[in-house]
Amino acid sequence: MFEFDDATALSGGGPVFSTTLGADWNGLLSANGGFMLALVTRALGRVMPFPDPIVVSGFFLRPGSAGPAEISTEVIRSGKTTGFGQASLWQDSREVVRATAAFADLAAAAARGGPLYSGGAAPDLPPPEECVALPPRTHSRIPLTQRLEYRAAALPSWAVGAPPSGNPVYELWLRFADGRQPDVASLPLIVDAVAPAALEVGAMSTTVELTVHLRARPAPGWLACRSLTRHLADGYHEEDFEVWDSARRLVAQSRQLALVLS
Amino acid sequence: MFEFDDATALSGGGPVFSTTLGADWNGLLSANGGFMLALVTRALGRVMPFPDPIVVSGFFLRPGSAGPAEISTEVIRSGKTTGFGQASLWQDSREVVRATAAFADLAAAAARGGPLYSGGAAPDLPPPEECVALPPRTHSRIPLTQRLEYRAAALPSWAVGAPPSGNPVYELWLRFADGRQPDVASLPLIVDAVAPAALEVGAMSTTVELTVHLRARPAPGWLACRSLTRHLADGYHEEDFEVWDSARRLVAQSRQLALVLS
Repeated sequence: MFEFDDATALSGGGPVFSTTLGADWNGLLSANGGFMLALVTRALGRVMPFPDPIVVSGFFLRPGSAGPAEISTEVIRSGKTTGFGQASLWQDSREVVRATAAFADLAAAAARGGPLYSGGAAPDLPPPEECVALPPRTHSRIPLTQRLEYRAAALPSWAVGAPPSGNPVYELWLRFADGRQPDVASLPLIVDAVAPAALEVGAMSTTVELTVHLRARPAPGWLACRSLTRHLADGYHEEDFEVWDSARRLVAQSRQLALVLS
Repeated sequence: MFEFDDATALSGGGPVFSTTLGADWNGLLSANGGFMLALVTRALGRVMPFPDPIVVSGFFLRPGSAGPAEISTEVIRSGKTTGFGQASLWQDSREVVRATAAFADLAAAAARGGPLYSGGAAPDLPPPEECVALPPRTHSRIPLTQRLEYRAAALPSWAVGAPPSGNPVYELWLRFADGRQPDVASLPLIVDAVAPAALEVGAMSTTVELTVHLRARPAPGWLACRSLTRHLADGYHEEDFEVWDSARRLVAQSRQLALVLS
């Protein structure tokens, strides 16, 4: 069994599930938001009559921490092609994350086809084997980053002790360190597993809300990712994240609103 | 009283409010999604201890229609700087929209300041008086568009009977037709009040989910708006929308996931 599947295992028959947030998936100070979002989305998948989340929006009400958690789920409505549901993660009877999602069948959607347009390109990265691995020492305080492998054309400023570059864009390769292949269920984790690009303009922040669009089932292999912030003002910034699979298809697109920590 | 305020008037003391969706705010076939999102966000504002929504995510469960509606609200959690709430719009005891939001005080956030970065520019439009007004005849089937004034450098393809341009970007000026000034409460409407840019690549679609970031209280005057789609595939596309005020500040940024109608 792979680490991610072990970490997102659920017990109970629903609509309430039990789980344990592993310290191995923590971010810098608390449970990683994307990991918790992946977890509640997975729980919701257990009760929805469609196989794939296509959009999930999570609000981060308070920090999560390693330890037991309950996930309550609700099927809001199920139509012909789309189902809607909601799930909350609770710790010590306090709500930590509330997420709403739409589910559908991405394989059926791909089979239907339809008009096609791409006005954005996959990150222009050298092959993973020609990239540098983000060195473990910069990651030592963030357990989550030990679960993944990161490769980039160059190290980010914070990894080499340089001042912020002023350019809040990161492009890099990601994959699970233990050989697990990407799937739709793991994409909410992936979109929040990279240091915020806003660090490059001097902002340390915490996520208020994260919306993830799941656009296709990813092919096996490395994921090419791009994280960027365009607008930082008045203590808030957005962060956009794209995930492209090894077939150079956009498989996830996310945006979060983050609150700058002063 | 201005049309928008009249149309979003609520009765009841909460947590459940009553209202009537006016046919004047319909889109092509049913109640406009952004209008319903503005309505539920306004209801939520009545029960939240912070003045401004900063992010709201709405899921569109079924079409809304002109007529009576109830809006149920819930304060999920209120912290020191951020409050979280949820609201649903119901018609005939059926849930039409479910929205979750975070609230804060945008005036206090602006006063606090902090790091500033802008990696995106406001739409590069000629002054409104040098632009063309979108002609009423193209709008005649969409009552909502009569509530607003639109000005663009050139008319979109569909307004002149031309084939789709292949370039899914619209830039245009917007303001209320009756002279009402923009405010945070009206921005969820504004971000969904323009024909989808994906029309320019041949897609007619319906909104599954819409997330709006409210970034600042807009200054009076025309709003410069940009709508664009980058990725259309497998029957889904995202649409990003930006709203810049007359002081050339980004005041709202939204993204929706839309399902192509086949």
